[in-house]
Amino acid sequence: MTKLEELKAKSAEIVDVQRAAAVLSWDQHAFMPVGGASARAEQLATLGKISHQLLVNSEMEKLLAAAKLEVEGMGPDSDDFAYWRAAQRNYDRFAKIPADLVARLSKATSLANEKWVDARSKSDFAIFQPNLEELLGLQLEMAKDLGYQDSPYDPLLDLYEPDMKAHQVRAIFTELKAGLVPIVAAIANGGRQIQKGFLMTEYELADQEAFTLELLKAIGYDFRRGRQDKVPHPFTTTFSSGDVRVTNRFMLNRAASSFFGALHEGGHALYEQGVRADFDHGFLGGGTSTAVHESQSRTWENIVGRSLPFWTHWFPALQKRFENQLRGVTAEEYWKAVNIVGPSAIRVEADEVTYNLHIILRFEIEVDLVEGRLAVKDLPQVWNAKMKESLGYEVKDDAEGVLQDVHWSMGYFGYFPGYALGNLLSVQFYQRAQADIPNLSEQLADGHYQVLLAWLRSNIHQHGSKYTPTELVQRVTGGEIDPKPFLAYLKEKYGQIYGI
Amino acid sequence: MTKLEELKAKSAEIVDVQRAAAVLSWDQHAFMPVGGASARAEQLATLGKISHQLLVNSEMEKLLAAAKLEVEGMGPDSDDFAYWRAAQRNYDRFAKIPADLVARLSKATSLANEKWVDARSKSDFAIFQPNLEELLGLQLEMAKDLGYQDSPYDPLLDLYEPDMKAHQVRAIFTELKAGLVPIVAAIANGGRQIQKGFLMTEYELADQEAFTLELLKAIGYDFRRGRQDKVPHPFTTTFSSGDVRVTNRFMLNRAASSFFGALHEGGHALYEQGVRADFDHGFLGGGTSTAVHESQSRTWENIVGRSLPFWTHWFPALQKRFENQLRGVTAEEYWKAVNIVGPSAIRVEADEVTYNLHIILRFEIEVDLVEGRLAVKDLPQVWNAKMKESLGYEVKDDAEGVLQDVHWSMGYFGYFPGYALGNLLSVQFYQRAQADIPNLSEQLADGHYQVLLAWLRSNIHQHGSKYTPTELVQRVTGGEIDPKPFLAYLKEKYGQIYGI
Repeated sequence: MTKLEELKAKSAEIVDVQRAAAVLSWDQHAFMPVGGASARAEQLATLGKISHQLLVNSEMEKLLAAAKLEVEGMGPDSDDFAYWRAAQRNYDRFAKIPADLVARLSKATSLANEKWVDARSKSDFAIFQPNLEELLGLQLEMAKDLGYQDSPYDPLLDLYEPDMKAHQVRAIFTELKAGLVPIVAAIANGGRQIQKGFLMTEYELADQEAFTLELLKAIGYDFRRGRQDKVPHPFTTTFSSGDVRVTNRFMLNRAASSFFGALHEGGHALYEQGVRADFDHGFLGGGTSTAVHESQSRTWENIVGRSLPFWTHWFPALQKRFENQLRGVTAEEYWKAVNIVGPSAIRVEADEVTYNLHIILRFEIEVDLVEGRLAVKDLPQVWNAKMKESLGYEVKDDAEGVLQDVHWSMGYFGYFPGYALGNLLSVQFYQRAQADIPNLSEQLADGHYQVLLAWLRSNIHQHGSKYTPTELVQRVTGGEIDPKPFLAYLKEKYGQIYGI
Repeated sequence: MTKLEELKAKSAEIVDVQRAAAVLSWDQHAFMPVGGASARAEQLATLGKISHQLLVNSEMEKLLAAAKLEVEGMGPDSDDFAYWRAAQRNYDRFAKIPADLVARLSKATSLANEKWVDARSKSDFAIFQPNLEELLGLQLEMAKDLGYQDSPYDPLLDLYEPDMKAHQVRAIFTELKAGLVPIVAAIANGGRQIQKGFLMTEYELADQEAFTLELLKAIGYDFRRGRQDKVPHPFTTTFSSGDVRVTNRFMLNRAASSFFGALHEGGHALYEQGVRADFDHGFLGGGTSTAVHESQSRTWENIVGRSLPFWTHWFPALQKRFENQLRGVTAEEYWKAVNIVGPSAIRVEADEVTYNLHIILRFEIEVDLVEGRLAVKDLPQVWNAKMKESLGYEVKDDAEGVLQDVHWSMGYFGYFPGYALGNLLSVQFYQRAQADIPNLSEQLADGHYQVLLAWLRSNIHQHGSKYTPTELVQRVTGGEIDPKPFLAYLKEKYGQIYGI
């Protein structure tokens, strides 16, 4: 056995513990009765502590050093080098975080999530505030342990976007915002009104669910290796590449949100189901960054799912299923309705144009929280003020304001930027696919998604986290994350819809 | 911190890992897609290995020795003594089983279970045979590691029935069988036919499920601390006393089996939900033996649930829900129908009289397998022959024969005797409750189950596994496991139904 093989065997156990924790988290959100919360918090804390102990110890340190000699001189195209590098990166990251902090974070997170659910249902930020304060304190402790030069936000961001810094995100977001503002203004000033009443009528929940299952199947989500369950805030989770679960929520008056939710989570799941089998039981399994992951969900939700050809193909089936709700509506009218641009409260239901403004707002707030310019208690007020300033939206209550997202309750600080970066990447990747596949548009128009999926599998999915996001983006696009293609895509699409 | 407190803190982590594994197993049976099987096997193997490593190490050995000095002189009524004793017992048991064997057992079990599901659905034992052979081999290895004097079956039995030996079970089963045979014969020869056609018509699955939820609620199962899900082979599992999950299965033509399934699993769950909160996060949580556990499920399923007063109370609600299926049927007719005695294939659907013959058959087969007098490949043949000899039943195929039970596929050898022993105990306990609660019968007849539940909570549930089964049975009944009260109960009940 080489040292690298030994390293792989030890890492496989760490991955097992992490994925066991993922099962516990999934159950916590999808099925767990309230009485299970405090014990579940203990269980997750213990699993977090154990996976930390398995990773960070002197034996592992020696093994990494020995394995390094075996992969020396190999480039990032070598699986072995990539494996060692991912292991070393994990080690470096977690060695800096004391086991005790990991356990406190895990426990605080489980309890905070419970409080967030309660606070959101009662629309009362005060219920969640003490927990968020505790979580923020723990994040700052972690940022300090991880170390940084410019901002304590950098090491937190790095957990989701390896090698990326707050100042880079700020530069991209500045260019993005400058491009978005005139588009939003042109649409608002253009005065074109799009009919959407038929989206808000009641759609039977069971039929919504059935349609989401059809969509998931159509785009290639493999139900022998996954399932869809109901949760308050949808997510995708991986227990192995043979078991990647999506979740969704179904609301009587918001059927379309479950359809796009399915395409969104389905996009994440296709990435995870497509990772090379031999990467599955180790550190190269799973996606390489939040942004790249989001590029996959957005490809299916927006580029494919909110296109006119998609609804030209699917609308007849939808209309048949919901004939009362969609009587007299055309595919083009439906397509326009699901692309209406305007200020709104909820990020996950925002249109493609304003969505990124929701993210930029969160990024600014997170940086201010973490850099100490903003106190947790002032969050609702600042949130609402920024929503008004940036989106022109008057927030009605905490539930549709600062409490809408699950992320902070799960201890995810630095996660949000990936959503907007993913939007940018989705268009950059898609343009590459268009260049590689001459008849891509025809295939998609016919409801044949295999050719696009095969391209994504080959260029992105299979690699798991073998390449860093920077390397992957370079390999696929020949460059870096760039807002221009995304802005051009918006101008063309919304030019068609709004005549701007 | 005393050494005992240190011991408790360490044990709590072991319990966390074991309960995390329980969540993974529950998901495996209730929700997991087929593609998840092999990774899940790895994950469970790793958790098994970790909990073994956390328990069996020199630090724990020293801690147990030091804690022993702190509890010296305390009797079994002391919580501290009981805690130390349970920890020492766990240690002694697992220290003898090498970590490597634990991992192999866990992995083999996960895969065997998958094969068993497939074999049962195709009614083909050959699919499952190699896995069962592997599991049996691993069980024998474990028996050898655990050590024994008389039979390799003893240390396996001891895992479920602490301190009990195969020869004791054989003695009890001999007396039991001698008592059962004349009852079965008298019923068969009595010639009284009971109408049961209305049990076999189609009952809507959703309505069956709704009725089981009503029953569970009525007997006191707390849904804030549990839920019911669907599985092929129902079981109850504990993630904490705040999260005890039951499962059930619903078949169009066998509605009653889901009703009694709910009462059965509900009985197990009431035990687990009733354990003292301060025992929950350690080695005194959970029931004290399989037999005592089964006594609780049988109390609710049979003594309460198959009694005439129960159906006098519940039948009107049932008839209202299923008016087409139950038109013209009386409560007494329904009660008699769900108590029909006769030879049948499936253990879990057997009546109270012949059920124990199903168990005695399994006990005999297990002992023969483990003691090397029977080869796995001959199992179907031997099973079918014994079913004919002991129950007069002609087995049609493997699915309704040797493949009907999940237990062996999960590596449970020595588990079955507890089912029959639990039947005996349920009557012994119930007679004690009757002596303690003068108006018990009236309460139950009125559908008030709290007084019985409170008695069980106080005398049995709260203690978790503080007392050994022998101690608990002694405390509650003043004696040992004894078939006579059970046989007397059968004679009285079936005298009423069959006029024997």
